[in-house]
Amino acid sequence: MRLSNLFTRTAKESAQSDASRNARFLTRAGYIDQLMAGVYSFLPLGLRVLNHIETIIREEMDRIGAQEILMPALQPREIWDRTGRWDKVDVLFKLKGAGDRDLALGPTHEEVVTPLVTSFIRSYRDLPRAVYQIQTKFRDEPRAKSGLLRCREFRMKDMYSFHADEASLDEFYEKTIAGYLNIYRRCGIGAGTLLTYASGGTFSKYSHEFQTVTPYGEDVIYRIPGSNIAINKEIIGDSGALAEIIPGYRAGDESRLEELKAIEVGNIFKLGSRFTDAFSAQYTDSAGAQKKIVMGCYGLGPSRLMGTIAECLADEKGLVWPAEIAPYRLHLVSLVRDLAEIEQCDRIYNGLAAQGIDVLYDDRQGRQAGEKFADADLIGIADRIVVSRKTLAAGGVEWKARLSNQSAVITLEKLYEILRPIERVV
Amino acid sequence: MRLSNLFTRTAKESAQSDASRNARFLTRAGYIDQLMAGVYSFLPLGLRVLNHIETIIREEMDRIGAQEILMPALQPREIWDRTGRWDKVDVLFKLKGAGDRDLALGPTHEEVVTPLVTSFIRSYRDLPRAVYQIQTKFRDEPRAKSGLLRCREFRMKDMYSFHADEASLDEFYEKTIAGYLNIYRRCGIGAGTLLTYASGGTFSKYSHEFQTVTPYGEDVIYRIPGSNIAINKEIIGDSGALAEIIPGYRAGDESRLEELKAIEVGNIFKLGSRFTDAFSAQYTDSAGAQKKIVMGCYGLGPSRLMGTIAECLADEKGLVWPAEIAPYRLHLVSLVRDLAEIEQCDRIYNGLAAQGIDVLYDDRQGRQAGEKFADADLIGIADRIVVSRKTLAAGGVEWKARLSNQSAVITLEKLYEILRPIERVV
Repeated sequence: MRLSNLFTRTAKESAQSDASRNARFLTRAGYIDQLMAGVYSFLPLGLRVLNHIETIIREEMDRIGAQEILMPALQPREIWDRTGRWDKVDVLFKLKGAGDRDLALGPTHEEVVTPLVTSFIRSYRDLPRAVYQIQTKFRDEPRAKSGLLRCREFRMKDMYSFHADEASLDEFYEKTIAGYLNIYRRCGIGAGTLLTYASGGTFSKYSHEFQTVTPYGEDVIYRIPGSNIAINKEIIGDSGALAEIIPGYRAGDESRLEELKAIEVGNIFKLGSRFTDAFSAQYTDSAGAQKKIVMGCYGLGPSRLMGTIAECLADEKGLVWPAEIAPYRLHLVSLVRDLAEIEQCDRIYNGLAAQGIDVLYDDRQGRQAGEKFADADLIGIADRIVVSRKTLAAGGVEWKARLSNQSAVITLEKLYEILRPIERVV
Repeated sequence: MRLSNLFTRTAKESAQSDASRNARFLTRAGYIDQLMAGVYSFLPLGLRVLNHIETIIREEMDRIGAQEILMPALQPREIWDRTGRWDKVDVLFKLKGAGDRDLALGPTHEEVVTPLVTSFIRSYRDLPRAVYQIQTKFRDEPRAKSGLLRCREFRMKDMYSFHADEASLDEFYEKTIAGYLNIYRRCGIGAGTLLTYASGGTFSKYSHEFQTVTPYGEDVIYRIPGSNIAINKEIIGDSGALAEIIPGYRAGDESRLEELKAIEVGNIFKLGSRFTDAFSAQYTDSAGAQKKIVMGCYGLGPSRLMGTIAECLADEKGLVWPAEIAPYRLHLVSLVRDLAEIEQCDRIYNGLAAQGIDVLYDDRQGRQAGEKFADADLIGIADRIVVSRKTLAAGGVEWKARLSNQSAVITLEKLYEILRPIERVV
């Protein structure tokens, strides 16, 4: 993509300078545009990052055997009455449809997925099953804020699993944890994201959150020193729970936990038969008896994850994207002005495209080198090359990584070598 | 994908036997599931078809130079007041957000896209621009019906173009017509889809619809004999318009037009400065003068297109998908029961996957051949192969096209040859 064609442009000052880091940088760099509090458009660069994140999520969910579907946002009141949640979910957007019918905009899909999937389940042979969707969700947040971190409209991956018994649910739940950790690793926040014990409701003692540690986080968690495990605020005062979670726990040990700020980037729950009971869904076991179907649910918001990555990895110059989710694999900065040199630079751009490398090409004329470099820093693509009269004379390009202060003039062949090992691999 | 793992199953009888052809077949084959009138879930097979259609649309819109974005469904009342449409769009879903704020669910996005894109347009150098999104839209249809053809929640590709003058708009409008015709051709309904003149509103004499001819259509159009051009009901009585559209028109010629039933699968409009005026958006021309920005808008609904393809191409046995949009490229029916033979069949399945061919593998045991063939016909994948003791002994597979009554035992190498030429090409 040529920057001269891209309809967005970078901005020096954010219109909302009091906003969070992710909102400021993503807005200034032309990734997102705020329509109202908690409601954003994704612009070309932003949509590409979102798509890359959603592709990673999709690959990891497919890998653990879940099947992708797409459920509607509009949901009739009847299914929410069935589970008793019509008046209990306080962020539920409610509206009237034709015929004065009560409708909700789905903030979650247990009420839709449970009758849908169980309608195809008759016997133990049809279990386990897991389905997921990546879909736009709605929450009537009283205080939408923090850019992509707390939105009224947002992208969500929600997965639901159905099992004949708790052992099967436990096994799938552990596979999902591994899949989630792969996602965070591939998105560049693996080391900073902790599996966090949270309270579990009526069916299960614990649920789990995935919390990414950052001074900009809104949540407080307590890390077990030397581990990637944490405990959230709900259960820090529960010594019984602590004894179960912390190896070799003794009374008072909670004072040795590290208190950290973090952003929640995923949460998973064992639901038991709460929803299958509400929809009278059962299966026939091998002896012919009717049995309860138990469920798990697994949430992970791609747009919130994008905001978290922006929030955590950005530096004072702008955004910093891991190669796999950057909007483009390479940022090509042209500093040439002579027609013959521009043609040479165009050939490099076309040659990279022919190698299957997605390039953002800053082909703009009449801009100073400093302005172009500042834009490249703000946009945050991992690898940058510069083409100038000097590099053309040297028969190469100047390569620089976003996070390094060093640069080197290298040949195109060498560049392909540098880019190859960081191409997308599962 | 192994059919034994797929969580959906085919059904003999539709729950809604009075529904339209597309709804009946898509529901019976496990592609979609109705949550309420005009609101559907897309199940694994259906989501794959929808994704393939959206990929084709994306490729064709990218090719004409439009940039993809994603705008929100939630829209504040203020922007609709600005264009005077808050009380004029009768299918607008309205709701209240936090702080008693009036919100709408977007049935279209002129109110969002106009200020968004024009905020980046300063001078003639920033024009023309075109953006599109593929997004979930909402219409409070009083009579949602006909399966995917008239929904309350549906997928929509909406594109908006911005121009310095009408000549630029006209040029882009013609390119879009060509892109749309490519889409319909690639989706298997090219020959039956007519460019149809419709009334044009205040800015332009005509707008255009794309109408797919079928006896199941709800619209009536009038085809100019021997052409792929038609006229819709709005302007059939306008002899001035007819004189412009029909070559060599003489009074009374309208009686020679063919009256046909059809489904609208796209519509495009020249908007002039209706929306840019409302948002006070202008550009500076090369002489430094402020000028009006003129716009075009271009709609095409992927889910409605999916319903139309199902409606038009299905036969009495079930769905018929063109190879490029079928949920899988190949349907592999196993009729073997012996363990060693099952292993041989699994090897064929794995070999096809290794060739990059997406296969739906009917590996179910304990089903009759007739039941498996009926399911394959209902699901409607273009190419089918059957593996049986007989074909294994002959060292090959039995290949059959969905629409042909003939079949032949061929080698796997021959099969790869058959599949190759119909792989996705732009």
